[in-house]
Amino acid sequence: MDPYKSLREEAFEANMEIPRQKLAIYTWGNVSALDPVRGLFAIKPSGVEYGNLSPADMVIVDLEGRVVDGTLRPSSDTKTHQVLYRSLPGIRGVTHTHSSFAVAWAQAARPVPVFGTTHADHGAEEIPCTAFMGEDAVKNDYELETGFLIVKTFKEQSIDPAHTQMVLVAGHGPFAWGDSAAQSVYHATVLEEICKMAYLTVTLNPDTPPLPGHIIRKHWERKHGPAAYYGQ
Amino acid sequence: MDPYKSLREEAFEANMEIPRQKLAIYTWGNVSALDPVRGLFAIKPSGVEYGNLSPADMVIVDLEGRVVDGTLRPSSDTKTHQVLYRSLPGIRGVTHTHSSFAVAWAQAARPVPVFGTTHADHGAEEIPCTAFMGEDAVKNDYELETGFLIVKTFKEQSIDPAHTQMVLVAGHGPFAWGDSAAQSVYHATVLEEICKMAYLTVTLNPDTPPLPGHIIRKHWERKHGPAAYYGQ
Amino acid sequence: MDPYKSLREEAFEANMEIPRQKLAIYTWGNVSALDPVRGLFAIKPSGVEYGNLSPADMVIVDLEGRVVDGTLRPSSDTKTHQVLYRSLPGIRGVTHTHSSFAVAWAQAARPVPVFGTTHADHGAEEIPCTAFMGEDAVKNDYELETGFLIVKTFKEQSIDPAHTQMVLVAGHGPFAWGDSAAQSVYHATVLEEICKMAYLTVTLNPDTPPLPGHIIRKHWERKHGPAAYYGQ
Amino acid sequence: MDPYKSLREEAFEANMEIPRQKLAIYTWGNVSALDPVRGLFAIKPSGVEYGNLSPADMVIVDLEGRVVDGTLRPSSDTKTHQVLYRSLPGIRGVTHTHSSFAVAWAQAARPVPVFGTTHADHGAEEIPCTAFMGEDAVKNDYELETGFLIVKTFKEQSIDPAHTQMVLVAGHGPFAWGDSAAQSVYHATVLEEICKMAYLTVTLNPDTPPLPGHIIRKHWERKHGPAAYYGQ
Repeated sequence: MDPYKSLREEAFEANMEIPRQKLAIYTWGNVSALDPVRGLFAIKPSGVEYGNLSPADMVIVDLEGRVVDGTLRPSSDTKTHQVLYRSLPGIRGVTHTHSSFAVAWAQAARPVPVFGTTHADHGAEEIPCTAFMGEDAVKNDYELETGFLIVKTFKEQSIDPAHTQMVLVAGHGPFAWGDSAAQSVYHATVLEEICKMAYLTVTLNPDTPPLPGHIIRKHWERKHGPAAYYGQ
Repeated sequence: MDPYKSLREEAFEANMEIPRQKLAIYTWGNVSALDPVRGLFAIKPSGVEYGNLSPADMVIVDLEGRVVDGTLRPSSDTKTHQVLYRSLPGIRGVTHTHSSFAVAWAQAARPVPVFGTTHADHGAEEIPCTAFMGEDAVKNDYELETGFLIVKTFKEQSIDPAHTQMVLVAGHGPFAWGDSAAQSVYHATVLEEICKMAYLTVTLNPDTPPLPGHIIRKHWERKHGPAAYYGQ
Repeated sequence: MDPYKSLREEAFEANMEIPRQKLAIYTWGNVSALDPVRGLFAIKPSGVEYGNLSPADMVIVDLEGRVVDGTLRPSSDTKTHQVLYRSLPGIRGVTHTHSSFAVAWAQAARPVPVFGTTHADHGAEEIPCTAFMGEDAVKNDYELETGFLIVKTFKEQSIDPAHTQMVLVAGHGPFAWGDSAAQSVYHATVLEEICKMAYLTVTLNPDTPPLPGHIIRKHWERKHGPAAYYGQ
Repeated sequence: MDPYKSLREEAFEANMEIPRQKLAIYTWGNVSALDPVRGLFAIKPSGVEYGNLSPADMVIVDLEGRVVDGTLRPSSDTKTHQVLYRSLPGIRGVTHTHSSFAVAWAQAARPVPVFGTTHADHGAEEIPCTAFMGEDAVKNDYELETGFLIVKTFKEQSIDPAHTQMVLVAGHGPFAWGDSAAQSVYHATVLEEICKMAYLTVTLNPDTPPLPGHIIRKHWERKHGPAAYYGQ
């Protein structure tokens, strides 16, 4: 009996959303699911196609980045997940994809302004984009430093990672998180949609101003504020 | 026996067109169907995914916005539907989506010019875009005021809502209506297609003039005029 | 026994390619198939959804535009097909769609330059775009005049309609033809693809020059010249 | 018993990826698979639709371009494949497509800068675009000269074709190769994805600089360097 069965299944199901939502092709992208009690997470193995994946392939890793269980090598981005779990309190899932519109904003190294209510429903701030990683950090430990870069960006810009649960890494692509692996993929899908809408908006009018602050706050609050009335 | 069975089924079928026509992802968007005799409409429950929806989940609401029947909370946009039913004579269905190209025009806060016959077949005027809602209106009753804003836009611009059955709410997205729930989704799909074509047109040539008035009128009349000869 | 059975089936099969190739939504677009011996063509009925269409619904029309057989009203664009059959020698099928990229070029009223070999494989000239129809012509007989406008455009620009089997009608959309109904839909699909590639090309670099003439001629000749060596 | 059975099957399977990955419509595009021991390759027959293709249809050609086995005429691009097999040491598969974004860059005759890690994971250099072929070369032997043009481009720009396994032919479209037919289609799919992301990036910001060199090298090395740690 596998003691990590349900954690692996949660991670597997969330990983399979990547091809279903067309967030990446082939083996690209990865999702992990955290068990906060045991301090372990299940993550996609490196370089395996989604069509060949099974729950048993998920690799169990601890918060020091050591493989605890599994026969395959974990995702090459594992250390970035590890840093996010250690630094962003309360998150239970992390997703990384190469979805086209989010990658385009990341390649242009532009944060995504709050142009509309679709964005405001999922965050009251612009979606931040990190700086390009410096040469020393790349040489030190690239994936660990990618995590540090994300955390630093939120701190420096005073953005609350419990509210804005998505980020662009400059020149690379999107990461998203949430209170479960499934919610982290949901946020990655929403991020792609927001980036698509924002792309169409700025190519239609490069001088489009952000949504007025009072509408941003209203949409954020009706879904996430103390008197939220969206959903069941 | 459910006295609202057929009304619920009409609303359910029309809601299921939203994912089929790819007008929104997850739980986004909502359609309602009006019973004008009883003064009631059936609407999608708030925050439920389309894949989990059944006809019985549709919530029955009266024209004061009170839930008359149903176990779930109605769409958070219910009051906007209510205002449209009360203010736009003869309509029997309302659709709201987050389709990408319509949202882009709404975020850029630009009305959509009549660039071609695809548009003219469905309306002889540009598709209006409301102003951004002011802070007081947002604080008062956001969803009710969204309805008022739409109605006001048509009045101020002297556009006939029986002819132009679609609108963009600035910074938010599209609403459409029609003589049935099904026709309101048809108009929402057509609006997305018109917005896509208009986007491609203005990015190809930002100075594209609108279609000459005599061609607009011809296309409108052959489908909707007294001597219409389109269809069976 | 229906004497038009095989003509109807040819037209029906070709019409069903429109939704399969995503060249139009709902009821939009229409294809016809000519029987040159009897001087009759079979065409889609007006305003019927593709999902509800059967071969028996195809309407048989003569080259004067009179319905010869069928219980439904023919496409509102029937007279345009009629003019093309009478004016373009040797064609056996005509297709009209509202495909997005072709409509965008038609709305911007721009002919499509030969930017690459995909285009040159199907025509050695730019794809012409008609002028906007004048008010008198619209008032006279809109659909007949649409046909005249197409024919006039080819004559004035000395383009051979046996080589360039596709056209954009300004502010409206694409028409295509060929030596069968199936080939006319093939040309409509190719036109959409060429228009998409040309759109991406000019938005990438507005000053892209056309392909050098010697490459255009080579690609045209290897598929259509006297020493063609493409295909079986 | 067919002595080329497994070579034909390898070529057939790789060709069927073209419609699956939406890299071309109808009969467009072609893939070949090399048997380096016998000095033969299997290639798609000219002008046959993918839906009608079977493994037995693959044509066996030697490295002089002579048909060795098969009843159909080989792809009109066969000589380009032949030149690539003779000139690029170690490759075992070649793919040519008409995928939209790659064609757009080829039509604009622009090499694709390394804007992000998706690109750097598959090549540390920009994707080169050849010059337009001159009139004499076109007259001499167009398809053979296309191969020469590709090889010359890599030599002149000192790009290693074992690292950058993809190219744009100006005004035409993409070619890709790899250590198997399957890998060559993988590279053609990746090229389309890179071209799409680069298109979105430059239309978002025309002045986007390339990714810093130290990040390019890191991504290239983690997948392909001596200490690569991506994959199993």
